[in-house]
Amino acid sequence: MTYERDNIKAMAGYTPGEQPSSVDVVKLNTNENPYPPCDAVLGAIRSVNAESLRRYPPPLADRFRNAAAKVHGIRPEQVIATNGGDELLRLAVTVFCDPNRSGGGGKGVGVAEPSYSLYPVLAEIQDTRITAVPLREDWSLPDDFADRLNDAGCGLAIVVNPHAPSGKLEPIDRLERVARAFKGVLMVDEAYVDFASRDAVPLLDPARGLNNVLLLRSLSKGYSLAGLRFGYGMGSTPLIDAMNKAKDSYNTDVLGQAAATAALEHRPEAARTWRAVIAERARLTQALTAKGYRVIPSESNFILATPPASGPDARAIYQSLKERSIFVRYFDQDRLRDKLRITVGTTAQNDKLLQAI
Amino acid sequence: MTYERDNIKAMAGYTPGEQPSSVDVVKLNTNENPYPPCDAVLGAIRSVNAESLRRYPPPLADRFRNAAAKVHGIRPEQVIATNGGDELLRLAVTVFCDPNRSGGGGKGVGVAEPSYSLYPVLAEIQDTRITAVPLREDWSLPDDFADRLNDAGCGLAIVVNPHAPSGKLEPIDRLERVARAFKGVLMVDEAYVDFASRDAVPLLDPARGLNNVLLLRSLSKGYSLAGLRFGYGMGSTPLIDAMNKAKDSYNTDVLGQAAATAALEHRPEAARTWRAVIAERARLTQALTAKGYRVIPSESNFILATPPASGPDARAIYQSLKERSIFVRYFDQDRLRDKLRITVGTTAQNDKLLQAI
Repeated sequence: MTYERDNIKAMAGYTPGEQPSSVDVVKLNTNENPYPPCDAVLGAIRSVNAESLRRYPPPLADRFRNAAAKVHGIRPEQVIATNGGDELLRLAVTVFCDPNRSGGGGKGVGVAEPSYSLYPVLAEIQDTRITAVPLREDWSLPDDFADRLNDAGCGLAIVVNPHAPSGKLEPIDRLERVARAFKGVLMVDEAYVDFASRDAVPLLDPARGLNNVLLLRSLSKGYSLAGLRFGYGMGSTPLIDAMNKAKDSYNTDVLGQAAATAALEHRPEAARTWRAVIAERARLTQALTAKGYRVIPSESNFILATPPASGPDARAIYQSLKERSIFVRYFDQDRLRDKLRITVGTTAQNDKLLQAI
Repeated sequence: MTYERDNIKAMAGYTPGEQPSSVDVVKLNTNENPYPPCDAVLGAIRSVNAESLRRYPPPLADRFRNAAAKVHGIRPEQVIATNGGDELLRLAVTVFCDPNRSGGGGKGVGVAEPSYSLYPVLAEIQDTRITAVPLREDWSLPDDFADRLNDAGCGLAIVVNPHAPSGKLEPIDRLERVARAFKGVLMVDEAYVDFASRDAVPLLDPARGLNNVLLLRSLSKGYSLAGLRFGYGMGSTPLIDAMNKAKDSYNTDVLGQAAATAALEHRPEAARTWRAVIAERARLTQALTAKGYRVIPSESNFILATPPASGPDARAIYQSLKERSIFVRYFDQDRLRDKLRITVGTTAQNDKLLQAI
């Protein structure tokens, strides 16, 4: 006898990338920023005192909301602070997508394929329908993306941009066309946007009159804070308010709020790491190309690389690197089986990878 | 036009207790521990380095699970670490309760009434049916509690013990009878149990053969860490595994994991604060009784007190205290309208309250 719901029983759960406990590995598999967070973030954490820990935190993370609003030129009410970007994704599915009903007819979630493997897991937890639209050969959204999601009755579309795992950046006018054509809420998952040439914040400009756009931001990559679990959403106030109703009452803690606020207030220091990653990304792309790899131009902090057909296949390379304590990501799924997703590391880490390949 | 689901649109959301930003108030309204967390917790937070923040945290909080298992004499696999006790409650509703279906028939959630006001909010978010069974006059569970929840088709029962807001402790043999009679999962919310004379951990003893019991623990009260957002669940491995599938992939962060592990490893220091609270609880109860208040014997870190009929009513006292920067909790609902819930503070805080009353 089991007590859990059928959908929970049937699902496997999300498989996180390997997190080796040793620090003596070259870890290029889960897209962390290779550079540390800035000193101000550590200082902010260390200045949280016993009295702040003893009390409940500000439930809406007011100081953080103000800092994020200032960075992006929007109002604090347009920001929701979350326990990682993952919580924002879950909240969007909870708020905008209906569980399957015996009679059918509820609103589902629409995604592009391939994409972040957490999205289908969230659909399984909510027991909502998922519609996956294949990306074109060049990893861009098909022209009829919104139409197909409308036909399938989706209440939410999630598009990761820059795309994972390809690193391709969808231009803003294409995102705007999707938002205008789509009848539900368009969530643009900008987890990697700090490494891209532009973001989708202009879509929130009131002059555009779009009220169905949500942007996801994460401090995990851009701000070197994957261990902190802090993300945020931006969008029109009614969308943000609806998600605030559904979040855990005190979803972010005082340490996270202090550290994340400091990170945004010291954004230029993070931006230096972005430029370093972008420079290394170019070097890594060039060096792998010289070795016969096909590498898609990436606007993210990882690259998707296809090894030359003449040598060992992607899976064998992944395994062989792992044996030498170099971790990259291998996806055993359509369109990705012949490729490796490699996080851009420090110069020294990338050199080790290039030597080993 | 709104995008959110009907149940989200219809709900009001949880109203947290007032969190005045000034530290110059006597804050006896949201059940924080009046004493600070121990130095080892602050030390653990301050020893988290930049490299740990940069990387993803252990997704299942292994070190914390081991520490909790050791404290309670169970196996680590029987522990789930959560972002506050709130997350555990939400996960239980997500995993064990069905959203309403057009055809009806899904499993709902059952609670006692009155009780923690978050429970109905979680039911609204999940769009599941809630069945509220009134407590007896003495705030104990009625004998037919499990039968009534079975009749209503509940998949989950949530019982806060010691009870909030009365502070009454339900004996373990009564909880065991409920667990045996109830066809779903019994969640005993032990958020306040550190201040009680006994806990429900013996229900997890394999010899009892109960596999439908979950216990909730929070570090907010007993360990003076409301600002940290850390809680955990204990139960049979299949129940814990099911909830692990539904949680956010990295639901707790490195700082919380480090601090919470240190808190449990230094439990005797927290226990000193429990004894101090218990002593003050007795003094406060006696002093209020001497002033004509009726006070229910409490096994928690708060008391539920009915002012004498001869003087101003509870609401007026609540308001008048607030004007003097003394915050207590007033619930404008049946059976509670004539009462105040007062968190047990330090000796100095309790003296201020007693002088003001």
